[in-house]
Amino acid sequence: MPSQPPLNKDTRLCISLAARPSNIGTRFHNHLYDVLGLDFVYKAFTTTDIAAAIGGVRALGIRGCSVSMPFKEDVIALVDEVEESARVINSVNTIVNDDGRLIASNTDYLAIRRLISEHRLDPGDAVVIRGSGGMASAVGAAFRDSGFAAGTIVARNAETGAALADRLGYAFATDLGDRTADVIVNVTPIGMAGGSEETDLAFDDSTIGAAKTVFDVVALPSETPLIVAARAVGIGVITGAEVIALQAAEQFERYTGVRPTDEQVAEASALSRA
Amino acid sequence: MPSQPPLNKDTRLCISLAARPSNIGTRFHNHLYDVLGLDFVYKAFTTTDIAAAIGGVRALGIRGCSVSMPFKEDVIALVDEVEESARVINSVNTIVNDDGRLIASNTDYLAIRRLISEHRLDPGDAVVIRGSGGMASAVGAAFRDSGFAAGTIVARNAETGAALADRLGYAFATDLGDRTADVIVNVTPIGMAGGSEETDLAFDDSTIGAAKTVFDVVALPSETPLIVAARAVGIGVITGAEVIALQAAEQFERYTGVRPTDEQVAEASALSRA
Repeated sequence: MPSQPPLNKDTRLCISLAARPSNIGTRFHNHLYDVLGLDFVYKAFTTTDIAAAIGGVRALGIRGCSVSMPFKEDVIALVDEVEESARVINSVNTIVNDDGRLIASNTDYLAIRRLISEHRLDPGDAVVIRGSGGMASAVGAAFRDSGFAAGTIVARNAETGAALADRLGYAFATDLGDRTADVIVNVTPIGMAGGSEETDLAFDDSTIGAAKTVFDVVALPSETPLIVAARAVGIGVITGAEVIALQAAEQFERYTGVRPTDEQVAEASALSRA
Repeated sequence: MPSQPPLNKDTRLCISLAARPSNIGTRFHNHLYDVLGLDFVYKAFTTTDIAAAIGGVRALGIRGCSVSMPFKEDVIALVDEVEESARVINSVNTIVNDDGRLIASNTDYLAIRRLISEHRLDPGDAVVIRGSGGMASAVGAAFRDSGFAAGTIVARNAETGAALADRLGYAFATDLGDRTADVIVNVTPIGMAGGSEETDLAFDDSTIGAAKTVFDVVALPSETPLIVAARAVGIGVITGAEVIALQAAEQFERYTGVRPTDEQVAEASALSRA
């Protein structure tokens, strides 16, 4: 079993920047550093000056910086290189500092692309995506870039929804109607613990029953009413917990050069949310 | 016994900035955080962009920043307030971040003033100070500001030595000659472990014998040939280890609001240099 060295002058620091930091990333990364014996330390930060904060990341040699709301777009102008994963959705969640050169990417997008591939979804199938926020943009781009030509964005917000559909070359509708699709994806807060629609289904039973795969990006709980309903009728599912674990593993590997196993990621995820 | 909480989003970060970071500060502060159960973490950093690094300290809410060579003067222009301890010697070794307002001070100067007072040195006495670098400037200003009117700077470097003497209103000489004084202070590397003058005496035996107090700023070892010689003939001493411990305790208190005991500081100092 590797053992983590005591904090020293050469320990690499990774941080997160969010308007409202949580303890999840701090616990997740530090737990894995410990398990893997890596000379790293991770801590969440907030800032009221994102430009100076990113300048500090570069000048202090902070190795990695996870980016959350409301900084995901603002940091694009502050880094040295924007990878395709962040460029296609104009949104960064990961910055790696390579000797003063800041490279931005989006591991949510990368995780969704990988899940589409790992679950062997068929790009010839039609996909319906509910939602039009930042994560819906990542999901839509990941499907489009995985070859899904027949897509529909369904969103109550006609402005952001139509704009997203337009960017993707997908159809748009303000409500689902009696539409069905092989792949149905929820990227709204419906089914999220503590939300006003906690017990609601993001798609109705007939739509679920007509699908081959039900994908819910909601991660808390990962067994949303939608996922529970899909499992009950034997439909394949992809959960928000899978997205979070995969994006976190991707981020972790970019910062440290070490890829944790699925079991290590699952354990760290569970501990970090306890 | 207090116990330190696991690293979390609210843990305060303190750092150091130096061209060549050591592990001493990292060990010293983290050991005391642990002993005192404080929710802090400390790590040494270096930078090639001091302005962006200090901007990052402010923007990331890094609570404290210890400043070493070659940044002690450069940071003056980058902070919001310079306390007298740093202003009188144009040199900062400590920055405290109070909610985005950076306050600079020099705890070396403060420690030397406190040692002059605690050891009850008499401002009516004459003082001779060997050296003309940054620390000699702090020592000279501390003596002058403690009321010592009769001072002499002795330095091989006539340019920096005469300039320092001039600033202090003290006499200057390039060598000691047969000069004696009540208080003699070494602020050169003479007697420092690993240096070319490791076994040399900063003052000769007759000068030591004529003094009331011998003060050596060299801390490694704290028992320099000068201190050993002074103790041998029963002359009072002040050691570099006292300066370091006192300045570190002062810095620690400014960052955390908690003053460690002398015993805690001594133990942390010993561990940090092991």
